[in-house]
Amino acid sequence: MVNYPIKRKKQVKSTNYANLGMTLESDIESTNSYYLDMGIAVIHKKPTPIQVVNVSYPARNKAKITEAYYKTPSTTDFNGIYKGMYIDFDAKETNSKTSMPLKNVHPHQIDHLRNVDKQKGISFLIVHFKAYNEYYLLPAQVLFEYWDMQYDKEKGRKSIPYSTFVERAYLIPFGYQPRLDYLKAVNLLLASETSSDH
Amino acid sequence: MVNYPIKRKKQVKSTNYANLGMTLESDIESTNSYYLDMGIAVIHKKPTPIQVVNVSYPARNKAKITEAYYKTPSTTDFNGIYKGMYIDFDAKETNSKTSMPLKNVHPHQIDHLRNVDKQKGISFLIVHFKAYNEYYLLPAQVLFEYWDMQYDKEKGRKSIPYSTFVERAYLIPFGYQPRLDYLKAVNLLLASETSSDH
Repeated sequence: MVNYPIKRKKQVKSTNYANLGMTLESDIESTNSYYLDMGIAVIHKKPTPIQVVNVSYPARNKAKITEAYYKTPSTTDFNGIYKGMYIDFDAKETNSKTSMPLKNVHPHQIDHLRNVDKQKGISFLIVHFKAYNEYYLLPAQVLFEYWDMQYDKEKGRKSIPYSTFVERAYLIPFGYQPRLDYLKAVNLLLASETSSDH
Repeated sequence: MVNYPIKRKKQVKSTNYANLGMTLESDIESTNSYYLDMGIAVIHKKPTPIQVVNVSYPARNKAKITEAYYKTPSTTDFNGIYKGMYIDFDAKETNSKTSMPLKNVHPHQIDHLRNVDKQKGISFLIVHFKAYNEYYLLPAQVLFEYWDMQYDKEKGRKSIPYSTFVERAYLIPFGYQPRLDYLKAVNLLLASETSSDH
């Protein structure tokens, strides 16, 4: 593994496992910084959408937002480009040992991932099973399959079983630099798509 | 031209030319909505990045942000996918009749566009010359050329002449639906790149 010098503030933070909700996101952001600095890919987290209602100007040229509210995002959190390919994904965590509940995914995210898929983008979820400390790249196709199936009275279930991750998702290596090398899993996904096309 | 039904609130707004600063952005957003609804492309504006300092909870589950500040974005405002290709751009307006000042572009945006270019994405600026009410797609390559030249003592200038837009940028058709059909200009850009490759 490359002993890549730590440059960014986020990477200097001690790994506080008490705050896992933020850790997955910051692990991905630190990975993205590494990809960017190494010229591997340009992938960024989109800012959280905020509806600004009131702004005051306590000093010249300094706007202070005094009233604002979080808005529901209309897309996934992460997108960018890797070797000419459009990449789009969201990150999810679950405490469950047996499955990822589908309620962790918002319908607008499904719509967005489907739109990206139609335009031939590479779309997926990164799912963290906290109980096992395992990270998976779940191809959007598998997600769509379970999403649509949940409305089926016979086969329907409100979650994707852990066994499906083991069988059909790609394990993401966790390390020091990059923290979560998810592009390795993207490469495996691409290789499997190429081989199934022929 | 297709008489596309008006669905989104933004499109219903009267075209108030007094507020041109917002109009370019909302014209692009309305165009993006059209592209999305027609299955042509998936391109979104990124939310404005905001640093949240204080949040209060006047009611259960309702977070009210009471102190926050605008942050400098680290990327351009727009990105997405069109026919499998990664698209990335920013929008600029100028009142000048003779040139677009380079100070309208931030150094971090240049860095970002260069990174995207290295990954073989399609990167450009949409520039509105208000004096002529003309919209141009300026290829990132031309922007880089002038950006680098500004530090040259002999050839250096702090702006891109209007004549360069006429000669080397692509005029974007302005219409009713879509408002600013910039993917037409992207098609021309792609065609010229293909022909110059051979």
